[in-house]
Amino acid sequence: MLMRLLGTGNAPQIPVFGCRCRSCGRARVDENFRRRPTSAEIQTATGRFLLDAGRTDLADWVDPETLSGVILTHYHMDHVAGLFHMRWGVCDPIPVYGPPDSQGADDLLDHPGCLDFSHHLIPYEATQLTEDLTVIPVPIKHSRLTFGYIVKGHRESLVYLSDCDGVGPESAQMIRDANPNAVIVDCSFPPETGRNHLSLDRAYALAEELQAPWLYLTHIGHDLSNYLLDHPLDPEGRLVLSHDGLTFHFD
Amino acid sequence: MLMRLLGTGNAPQIPVFGCRCRSCGRARVDENFRRRPTSAEIQTATGRFLLDAGRTDLADWVDPETLSGVILTHYHMDHVAGLFHMRWGVCDPIPVYGPPDSQGADDLLDHPGCLDFSHHLIPYEATQLTEDLTVIPVPIKHSRLTFGYIVKGHRESLVYLSDCDGVGPESAQMIRDANPNAVIVDCSFPPETGRNHLSLDRAYALAEELQAPWLYLTHIGHDLSNYLLDHPLDPEGRLVLSHDGLTFHFD
Repeated sequence: MLMRLLGTGNAPQIPVFGCRCRSCGRARVDENFRRRPTSAEIQTATGRFLLDAGRTDLADWVDPETLSGVILTHYHMDHVAGLFHMRWGVCDPIPVYGPPDSQGADDLLDHPGCLDFSHHLIPYEATQLTEDLTVIPVPIKHSRLTFGYIVKGHRESLVYLSDCDGVGPESAQMIRDANPNAVIVDCSFPPETGRNHLSLDRAYALAEELQAPWLYLTHIGHDLSNYLLDHPLDPEGRLVLSHDGLTFHFD
Repeated sequence: MLMRLLGTGNAPQIPVFGCRCRSCGRARVDENFRRRPTSAEIQTATGRFLLDAGRTDLADWVDPETLSGVILTHYHMDHVAGLFHMRWGVCDPIPVYGPPDSQGADDLLDHPGCLDFSHHLIPYEATQLTEDLTVIPVPIKHSRLTFGYIVKGHRESLVYLSDCDGVGPESAQMIRDANPNAVIVDCSFPPETGRNHLSLDRAYALAEELQAPWLYLTHIGHDLSNYLLDHPLDPEGRLVLSHDGLTFHFD
């Protein structure tokens, strides 16, 4: 199995509209440095899942015949924007797994089209999506109801925490117990700035709290990106900066 | 001045996600036949305006320094989706002119970022946006509060009616009085089908009612596109099928 990061940027993305900072300028000329809306895809032997759907080009390259479902962390626009085109698809119903947020986003739940939003997941309860893939939603701290996910293969597991301003004790314990190979976590801001998302100092603290062997930072904002041009992450440390396209293998 | 159509498709666009019909298959291999979300840009001697903002790639190629404002017909997602990225821009405030719809779309009005939504237009009242450009909003029939626009240069004018399921008598009279060079109008469906948008037979009737010299059809759905492969528009008639990129010149 693999998990590929389809985006590692925060809501403004990188480049930010109209911004001339170093990180945005670089991303504008070299798309390797772009950071699209934070999201991922999971490919298993028998299925393919989207983990959030904020990229608005999904309908251009996702084939509904090979798409087993969409797993949502929450209903902020930068995590669901791509569904507004996909919902009018000519295809079999596509299951959407996510938190029971009756508000959804704009009119998405009122006019779901081919998307089936009835698959509410229950916190801390394992749901086997395919023979080789199980997900366990863990509630995390954010400005609205948001799930992180423990994503388990047969032997190995990853933890995906976006968007996130910390993790409560019950979720933290479950994550430690899962003994994940890596934790992918929201880190939007430079140290001691921002809210509703982690800043770099709080990401360090979370790595300790979760006893994560590797903490991959995602949901990166341009201020953090610029900060890291001058203050690189400790190469001996356990924090790693993600990039769009980064791929994890786990079985 | 010129008005360039940035998109001529309905909410599902062409190609529709997963659809294998003739029109969608053609658009998938030849992007000249794509129909993106219905929208336009107006370029004047002194400014550039977006007329709706449903394309989600606007932040990639619109320069906020040359953007004078955004004019909205209404707040359905396929007309405002591009604003969710743009709103976090690093730039001067961008005026958004539109109907006084307090609901907006999702959390757009609550978190406007660089977009200034305070510029409500008053039906039937001319607003001069630049020395050479005046717009007059005309309420039109749709499933929520929607303005069409009479777009006037010094001598010539265009009328833009999207989304539209017809025009009431007061708006129709004002459009006739404006004596436009062309009317660009929503026509989503084959004859005698659909709702909230015009079908082909009702577009013919509207051309008569408005005494439009030319009626350019936009907001095209794939069913209408397929119908027109077998039933071409009367080449002697006043109806013309738009395409993405079509450009009108008026002064």
